[in-house]
Amino acid sequence: MARLPTRDEDISSRHFAWQECRIPELQDGEFLVKTLCLAPAPAQRGYLEPGYSDFLPALAPGEVMRGRGIGQVIASRHPDHAAGEIFVGSLGWQTYSIQKPRGAEFVFSTRRIPRPVQPLSLHLGILGQAGATAWFGLLEVGNLQAGDAVLVSAAAGGVGSVAGQIARIKGARLVVGTAGSDAKCRWLCDTLGYDVAINYQTENLHERLRELFPTGIDVFFDNVGGDILDAALANLAMHARVVICGFIASNYAAEPQPGPANYSRIVYKRARMEGFVLFDYWNRYQEAEQALLGWYRAGLLKNCEDVTDGLENMPDALGELFRGGNTGIKICRVAPDPEQLTGE
Amino acid sequence: MARLPTRDEDISSRHFAWQECRIPELQDGEFLVKTLCLAPAPAQRGYLEPGYSDFLPALAPGEVMRGRGIGQVIASRHPDHAAGEIFVGSLGWQTYSIQKPRGAEFVFSTRRIPRPVQPLSLHLGILGQAGATAWFGLLEVGNLQAGDAVLVSAAAGGVGSVAGQIARIKGARLVVGTAGSDAKCRWLCDTLGYDVAINYQTENLHERLRELFPTGIDVFFDNVGGDILDAALANLAMHARVVICGFIASNYAAEPQPGPANYSRIVYKRARMEGFVLFDYWNRYQEAEQALLGWYRAGLLKNCEDVTDGLENMPDALGELFRGGNTGIKICRVAPDPEQLTGE
Repeated sequence: MARLPTRDEDISSRHFAWQECRIPELQDGEFLVKTLCLAPAPAQRGYLEPGYSDFLPALAPGEVMRGRGIGQVIASRHPDHAAGEIFVGSLGWQTYSIQKPRGAEFVFSTRRIPRPVQPLSLHLGILGQAGATAWFGLLEVGNLQAGDAVLVSAAAGGVGSVAGQIARIKGARLVVGTAGSDAKCRWLCDTLGYDVAINYQTENLHERLRELFPTGIDVFFDNVGGDILDAALANLAMHARVVICGFIASNYAAEPQPGPANYSRIVYKRARMEGFVLFDYWNRYQEAEQALLGWYRAGLLKNCEDVTDGLENMPDALGELFRGGNTGIKICRVAPDPEQLTGE
Repeated sequence: MARLPTRDEDISSRHFAWQECRIPELQDGEFLVKTLCLAPAPAQRGYLEPGYSDFLPALAPGEVMRGRGIGQVIASRHPDHAAGEIFVGSLGWQTYSIQKPRGAEFVFSTRRIPRPVQPLSLHLGILGQAGATAWFGLLEVGNLQAGDAVLVSAAAGGVGSVAGQIARIKGARLVVGTAGSDAKCRWLCDTLGYDVAINYQTENLHERLRELFPTGIDVFFDNVGGDILDAALANLAMHARVVICGFIASNYAAEPQPGPANYSRIVYKRARMEGFVLFDYWNRYQEAEQALLGWYRAGLLKNCEDVTDGLENMPDALGELFRGGNTGIKICRVAPDPEQLTGE
């Protein structure tokens, strides 16, 4: 990272500098990973500003930008990791990284992928954090039931594009998404199986929700906050579940944003708003991964990734998430997948 | 009711007119009840304005004001109700009412009290709706556990004055309340057993919560909304439960009120905000009543009622709830308790 962005500034390449350096010699317990692909995520914006991330300290200018990715082990002086294996974890925005496993955290979030599936980016996408976040958010926190009427905000975003598909597969009677362009709305319906997509830029969200959910929204999977959350709260079904996954409308806004004025509807509707963080579900990660992989292989779950090529374009790939530039799970391809993989 | 209040007007006697009329003759299936006491409740404000109550239609000028009370059956042409029995239900703001049971609703909310306890107002207070609301809200919705750190807003209000006592009895390690005067704060600590009471009119709520809850609030029982909700959200413990019981700060405000800007804390803290309505727990009402009565008899639970005398003062008693005039559960005494009671 080269310099801190100001609060109202888009993230772009001017906040980063490209540096080349020699790969240091491996020490005992270390192994070298070649980065194949990286996934930008809104949380990464928080690493650039002190006090913004509740989970990790902010980076200082000069440090390597943090980021989750898939790589291949090239050389190893670690007893449990061998050259050739595919590895997922915090590789950073760099072409190679030296990894040094540290205790318990090194189990699910950062680990060898025993049976890699190609394209390997699937393990960052529908089989990775985006998929698992949608899975646990919708099924555990949202307690989705067959027959529910479901709304997903930022439905063409990384998590939203999986959440809508899961709702469909699990038998929701109605799956509606919101997105910021007609092209995204068409993609949601034509490719991902959403019943209806609302362009919140051009349509009256309150009216549309009232029309589409005459008996109310059973599960609202919210990635956005702001107006969309308020409109959804005004249209809840009895015993509705509002899953708060993110709030991209407000958390990096230049000015403090008002909260959802309609929160009081959760009393009349005996509804619940609940936040969650994927970290808490790492020990159940394989449960999600297996189900998602089964659906992918059966052709029920689409690989909905949106690929940018080249590590040098990673800053813009991250910025796109805030500008609504991506359609699906944003992936940055750093190097091609290896032709031959050694699985278990 | 004589005329509709405007949005920013206090409820007072000028909205009501006193009318005298003959008691009509009883028909088959009816019985006559003499009102002994009534409980004003914030929800009653909603009966005065079309579209405000989600539960009941608004009243028109000229109709008898709705209200829950305790009375004694004076005469009966109903097979299940006999003269002398004590009855709780929707008696209206009147000295006598004719009751005509209608099906299933006539079980818990409106019913004969088989073993009345004196003062009978207890059945409107700690053993009635206030007690049961605090009980189910704190224990079921809030899932209170021994050792929790608990915050109650409007702690000197009807429900709050029971909620804090229940939290204490159930082994909360810290019970903090907010109230609007030093006198109320002293009452909370000296009489009800609160550990600390914060005068939100004179103290800095955000700072006090940070000091008092260094590891965060486990259960927030909220009757108020607005600033207090926002301050509490900023100080949640991991896996906190925010029980939304009411929002007197905003629901009859003249201008639309902003929602809780800090709602996003429920993600970082994996917390839950949930609304509830006592109606949903009617079929479990006796569970609460028995426990509350046991505690009352054991001297653990105080009868924290605040009595106004005279039906003519009922409008001001209701208005007090919105001006913060009451200390404890507001009861309006219409006639003295009978000297002899016939129980089961």
